[in-house]
Amino acid sequence: MPSADASRKSQEKPREIMDAAEDFAKERYGVSSMIQSQEKPDRVLVRVSNLTVKKADEVVWVRARVHTSRAKGKQCFLVLRQQQFNVQALVAVGDHASKQMVKFAANINKESIVDVEGVVRKVNQKIGSCTQQDVELHVQKIYVISLAEPRLPLQLDDAVRPEVEGEETSTSQAVFRLQSGICHLFRETLINKGFVEIQTPKIISAASEGGANVFTVSYFKNNAYLAQSPQLYKQMCICADFEKVFCIGPVFRAEDSNTHRHLTEFVGLDIEMAFSYHYHEVVEEIADTLVQIFKGLQERFQTEIQTVNKQFPCEPFKFLEPTLRLEYCEALAMLREAGIEMGDEEDLSTPNEKLLGRLVKEKYDTDFYILDKYPLAVRPFYTMPDPRNPKQSNSYDMFMRGEEILSGAQRIHDPQLLTERALHHGIDLEKIKAYIDSFRFGAPPHAGGGIGLERVTMLFLGLHNVRQTSMFPRDPKRLTP
Amino acid sequence: MPSADASRKSQEKPREIMDAAEDFAKERYGVSSMIQSQEKPDRVLVRVSNLTVKKADEVVWVRARVHTSRAKGKQCFLVLRQQQFNVQALVAVGDHASKQMVKFAANINKESIVDVEGVVRKVNQKIGSCTQQDVELHVQKIYVISLAEPRLPLQLDDAVRPEVEGEETSTSQAVFRLQSGICHLFRETLINKGFVEIQTPKIISAASEGGANVFTVSYFKNNAYLAQSPQLYKQMCICADFEKVFCIGPVFRAEDSNTHRHLTEFVGLDIEMAFSYHYHEVVEEIADTLVQIFKGLQERFQTEIQTVNKQFPCEPFKFLEPTLRLEYCEALAMLREAGIEMGDEEDLSTPNEKLLGRLVKEKYDTDFYILDKYPLAVRPFYTMPDPRNPKQSNSYDMFMRGEEILSGAQRIHDPQLLTERALHHGIDLEKIKAYIDSFRFGAPPHAGGGIGLERVTMLFLGLHNVRQTSMFPRDPKRLTP
Repeated sequence: MPSADASRKSQEKPREIMDAAEDFAKERYGVSSMIQSQEKPDRVLVRVSNLTVKKADEVVWVRARVHTSRAKGKQCFLVLRQQQFNVQALVAVGDHASKQMVKFAANINKESIVDVEGVVRKVNQKIGSCTQQDVELHVQKIYVISLAEPRLPLQLDDAVRPEVEGEETSTSQAVFRLQSGICHLFRETLINKGFVEIQTPKIISAASEGGANVFTVSYFKNNAYLAQSPQLYKQMCICADFEKVFCIGPVFRAEDSNTHRHLTEFVGLDIEMAFSYHYHEVVEEIADTLVQIFKGLQERFQTEIQTVNKQFPCEPFKFLEPTLRLEYCEALAMLREAGIEMGDEEDLSTPNEKLLGRLVKEKYDTDFYILDKYPLAVRPFYTMPDPRNPKQSNSYDMFMRGEEILSGAQRIHDPQLLTERALHHGIDLEKIKAYIDSFRFGAPPHAGGGIGLERVTMLFLGLHNVRQTSMFPRDPKRLTP
Repeated sequence: MPSADASRKSQEKPREIMDAAEDFAKERYGVSSMIQSQEKPDRVLVRVSNLTVKKADEVVWVRARVHTSRAKGKQCFLVLRQQQFNVQALVAVGDHASKQMVKFAANINKESIVDVEGVVRKVNQKIGSCTQQDVELHVQKIYVISLAEPRLPLQLDDAVRPEVEGEETSTSQAVFRLQSGICHLFRETLINKGFVEIQTPKIISAASEGGANVFTVSYFKNNAYLAQSPQLYKQMCICADFEKVFCIGPVFRAEDSNTHRHLTEFVGLDIEMAFSYHYHEVVEEIADTLVQIFKGLQERFQTEIQTVNKQFPCEPFKFLEPTLRLEYCEALAMLREAGIEMGDEEDLSTPNEKLLGRLVKEKYDTDFYILDKYPLAVRPFYTMPDPRNPKQSNSYDMFMRGEEILSGAQRIHDPQLLTERALHHGIDLEKIKAYIDSFRFGAPPHAGGGIGLERVTMLFLGLHNVRQTSMFPRDPKRLTP
């Protein structure tokens, strides 16, 4: 193999600069050879976020991206960016930089990664366009570590709207840092409550919920399916006496829906729990877990929330303690009072969900609430009927800013009733035999639910599309990157 | 729908018992109606693990499974099990129980879930067969909450080996509690180190590593694939300046391997990290993360480790701090000294890996070590070559008890070198265009690795098959449950 190192050496200086003789600074800049872990220098790279007046007059090394550059006579101003932080850097003809060096710096493609040695200098006037407003870096050495290819000329030039580009990068970082926080808070809360994390298979031999909207996989000489939910497996863990389990993992839905809130692959935060007497024990645990997440986000991720709000302004997320729980019939009454005509056993349409969210917000001042006791007719066959009212069920959804983020229920743990309900729904008993059989050896009463991670992130931040909260969204038309 | 409750009421007492007149205790036992969340009683269920002499002479309610039952004249001894804990319970003809009640208790199918009211009594002689050795429960009321169907007569009767059955249940609980702990410690450690958790898609448009061993999915009118690794996505996050990322999720391999350590779907703990100058910065972070996991398990999961050891005895897992790092050539020398013939650029076979593990254990007294600087020829095309030795690479594996649990490397972050290496491996550039393009806009040097969760659990506990550490294992012949 040809040594990449050798082939790069000749590129260190563009030819026209090399030809200009007498460059006293020629060792102080250039394109560095590729980092292949040749050396372990003692050099410490300082974080851009740590460049403050405390470091004034210190010589530091920084690795960052060239966010913008602007040549102005014998000077070149760079904005160096590291994650959501940036600092102004100045390369000026003088003791440390030659004319050629300034020209080199001015010609570095934006987004390239550079190593810069410079002196931290306090500035007299705050630099409004940077996060590090009180200092700038006086560059003594600058080397390109990874060269970005030039941008396509068709793209909007950064110079026209430098803040917006910076904002987008920062917004995206902030969204996914907060999303990481949601997962962390979810687990932290549940582990403290005595839950066990489980791993459930995604390749399964039979469609989990009857067969519709399922992706088929070629499995050696047979077909298999992608799990539409970990529910069967969560319930089997309950039957195996794990008592309280949760899992985080991909959920697959082969729905040809192209809406702002549907993905064909999303991340499910799933909970299942045995209870003593009443499924409200579980509802309370789930609602409290969400409340702990909201609180944790507001406490630990204020910077991220504000960064996102700058680009997408939004009211802070409000919630009550304990969480508001409305019964379905109460919600119907509120909607009817607002002029909506709906039958007692009719499911909520998306517009009616949103309207209900607004009515609840007006009346109770909360963006988060539980809707309990759904009509039995609109829920899956495994939902426990309400013993007091055969048209109702022990099932619930939870809503954030008027959109559903969790669906759950007490599950039928009795094989005889489960069989009756499956027959009532016209389900082929052969296809769900393994499911029904799992309750034949003693099953505690239990309930649970599944939360959509991308929806929670979207609605907490008041964004308007799950594609903003999925790094690599999958929908019927989108499979790459 | 017929009320399940009503249909159950008639079953509360088996007919022959109902017929026996004059049962003064008839309200004190029976099959309870199905728990459909009818009531929210104040009754507190006490944990079996809390039944100790501290509770002597208290009346308590317990919900547990009937582990064994043994009738003996006018008495019936039950062992009640809750997760890994169990207690002896006595139903005896007397003030609180009739002859019929004792008979009822003796006839409850094993594994049924019962609610029992009883008085905690200190015993004179320790009950060796139970975890709660100092007390027993004098039963006053007993209701079946969920009836288990009787066991098939072909199964080995529990009476023959009651301890073994109990052990298996406890072992399995312990294995998966410890596995939950591994995930928790992995995340806790990485979050503390400043890593961000990411979610990567499992349905992808092109096979991640060239096309072999990949499952095909029908995706609406096209085909898609199941991700064999989150690597491309981890690397894209590094290119987007997340700097340090991790993810936990399913990894799919369509390999027709039927060994003790291969699954077609397993859980990957993946790490990717930008570094300043040398990939050893990353190797040290990963090794330290594993060390924190080992320490955390030994500190927080001693009960689980001992439970598993009881059924599967094993030496405690040993590791050094800092972690031992050997170069591939050193390992070759050790193997050659032990009589193995191997070429310099030959990969380790499974038996040689195991032998090496034994040699390393003898020489360094550790069950965990890093093997660094693999021959370039045996690693994937994206592996960074060693600049000092063109036959070596900046890549590494990590081993536990002589088996590989992690494979990783510095990745090539330069699109030109990546193209050269792909061509050298005969890879169709068209198929990896998106991958190569992701490095064209400035990419920091980075390295990472992927850990197999089931293997870590298996090897930490000294078990011998990943099927023991996967709740629902998937292999070429196994897709259910």
